[in-house]
Amino acid sequence: MRRVAIIGVGQTKFGEHWSEGFRDMVTEAGAKAIEDANIHGEEIQAGYVGTMASGRLVGQEHIGALLADYMGLNPIPITRVEGACASGALAFRQGFMAVASGMHDVVVVGGVEKMTDLDVSEVSDILGGAGDQEWELFLGATFPGLYAMMARRHMYEYGTTPEMLASVAVKNHKNGAKNKYAQYQNEITLEQVLKSKMIADPLKVFDCSPITDGAAAVVLAPLDVANKYSEQPIEIIASAQASDNIALHSRASLSELRATKVAAKQAFEQAKLTTKDIDLAEVHDCFTIAEIMAIEDLGFYKKGEGGKASLDGKTALDAEIAVNTSGGLKACGHPVGATGIKQICELTWQLRGKADGRQRKDAEIGLAHNVGGSGATAVVHILKQGW
Amino acid sequence: MRRVAIIGVGQTKFGEHWSEGFRDMVTEAGAKAIEDANIHGEEIQAGYVGTMASGRLVGQEHIGALLADYMGLNPIPITRVEGACASGALAFRQGFMAVASGMHDVVVVGGVEKMTDLDVSEVSDILGGAGDQEWELFLGATFPGLYAMMARRHMYEYGTTPEMLASVAVKNHKNGAKNKYAQYQNEITLEQVLKSKMIADPLKVFDCSPITDGAAAVVLAPLDVANKYSEQPIEIIASAQASDNIALHSRASLSELRATKVAAKQAFEQAKLTTKDIDLAEVHDCFTIAEIMAIEDLGFYKKGEGGKASLDGKTALDAEIAVNTSGGLKACGHPVGATGIKQICELTWQLRGKADGRQRKDAEIGLAHNVGGSGATAVVHILKQGW
Repeated sequence: MRRVAIIGVGQTKFGEHWSEGFRDMVTEAGAKAIEDANIHGEEIQAGYVGTMASGRLVGQEHIGALLADYMGLNPIPITRVEGACASGALAFRQGFMAVASGMHDVVVVGGVEKMTDLDVSEVSDILGGAGDQEWELFLGATFPGLYAMMARRHMYEYGTTPEMLASVAVKNHKNGAKNKYAQYQNEITLEQVLKSKMIADPLKVFDCSPITDGAAAVVLAPLDVANKYSEQPIEIIASAQASDNIALHSRASLSELRATKVAAKQAFEQAKLTTKDIDLAEVHDCFTIAEIMAIEDLGFYKKGEGGKASLDGKTALDAEIAVNTSGGLKACGHPVGATGIKQICELTWQLRGKADGRQRKDAEIGLAHNVGGSGATAVVHILKQGW
Repeated sequence: MRRVAIIGVGQTKFGEHWSEGFRDMVTEAGAKAIEDANIHGEEIQAGYVGTMASGRLVGQEHIGALLADYMGLNPIPITRVEGACASGALAFRQGFMAVASGMHDVVVVGGVEKMTDLDVSEVSDILGGAGDQEWELFLGATFPGLYAMMARRHMYEYGTTPEMLASVAVKNHKNGAKNKYAQYQNEITLEQVLKSKMIADPLKVFDCSPITDGAAAVVLAPLDVANKYSEQPIEIIASAQASDNIALHSRASLSELRATKVAAKQAFEQAKLTTKDIDLAEVHDCFTIAEIMAIEDLGFYKKGEGGKASLDGKTALDAEIAVNTSGGLKACGHPVGATGIKQICELTWQLRGKADGRQRKDAEIGLAHNVGGSGATAVVHILKQGW
């Protein structure tokens, strides 16, 4: 396989975009990434786009062709990829394979979701399609409910506390406050999180990522020609994906995501690295408990010690490992299909040393972790400076 | 890139499956393909699945993980790919790239759609999401309406007649009558088609493919090890995909599908073949006019001569080129995401010489042509005997 690099990235602001539609956002993000890559549109040979539920959210399927059309890229092939909340990372992975295989040279990969045009109960029902529709959603289980059960079990097994959960939100808002693309650019306190409204015990509203509109895009090229386009290409040194039972009741454990463990193991083997080599990680914190499980299942902390590590500040910007320097899903917001690509944008800015007020010092190697649904899909990418 | 072969295929009967759900069908097709490939489940390293609108049709997204779970394939990665009615071929193409790149060895690719659980008006609305939701569907244009405009223009420019359109349906039903997996296994006459109810002038009900449930699957492996599994591996010698404007009003011509022309040109270049080398083709006949445009845009007949060629019987099983030996979308039915994979199944059976009563004599090289929406995506694969 050929070595592959990121040569350009771009994203919209994440938030509630009342005056921009699905196609406007993806075009904005794509144009920014193409400009950042210093390429002409005609150099792009193929594209991928991740979006979870455009059919139900905006009545539009066939997103690949729509994107080719609206970005003026016809007749190149563009393909939509879907894996619930991991749609972005899955699209990125297909783009990586398209370049690695030699099928295409310059490939653009986007992620997008337009979620705020429907009311919250409808969106909650649609997001339920990321779990088991017949055995979970149909019986009333929403995503906050599913993650609440995981949180309860984690608390029972390991003594994880509400304060530990809340510390994730506080840290991510602190980082997000420095990110101009984040939906929430305000800091919050532990007390505010703990006093916020209960959604699904023990998860309070500030333990949950919000509903968000947004898009993000990246441009990929073979590493050996990447410096023709970019002074700071970022190499993709690992790409791994794994699956687990779609319904919680089928899993061996509720307090870990097995797909994350499998994908992480494969990614570290591909990269020939260990967790100690990682300077920063964007992990899938759809709920605060999800970040705690992620940093355990990825191997940064032993199972059961993620909560304490968070509360002790070990995942802060300047600590052992910087987790969710972007602000994560919690502060950036979570436009489902865009999140996995936004993680790649953030790591790219960090590894370039261009992350403004939230720069991780000496960031050389970063990891992105994107989860679909309640953990039935997990995708791990490892990136490093490629110049 | 490594050379890639098909080592197993399988499909459900296409039709109205009142007693089988989405996940039952895809599991049945997958199990058949795995059995046909003579492999054990644990040899499969990854999967892809094409489905257009599972979110709206059955409330379920995250189909990759669902399939991994229900087929007992966890924790391997399975990824959903969507490109409207071309979802199957796009999934097949990603599977091809995953093997060609060296990322994975044995890969399963499925296609599935469960369409008959909703009423026809809802399904028609959902299928409209394959076109331009904001500029076509929203204003009342359904797919029969869009293809009717293309048919009208083709008649105006080239003198194509209702009899020529009808001849496509008659030929495809004749082939489908010999296919035990087809939704309609009855022959029809030209007169029956011409006297059938008008849907969108000039397209009558027998000019239209039906709404259908079904699934199909294939197993891929590197060609150099394919004969370890199969006595008759089928090599994929070309894989090409192209895009066109999503809305009809943006296109330069209504009487051709530019994406088909671009993809066909690339596919023939990859395969180092011409149209004369092709023994049989499965083409995308969602409406009779679509098959006429397809055989022109693929290059088998000059623009404007496809209708006469059909009426003159040149696309029959034993004629110049056998088109839609399976019965096509018209007689097999069109479970959207499954159609592109079903085309590959049919070509595989034909190239193996195992197509029972509908066998094309001396079939050595076949072409599959799958279209998304009204032509905004086109995918062309060329297969040949690999033993």
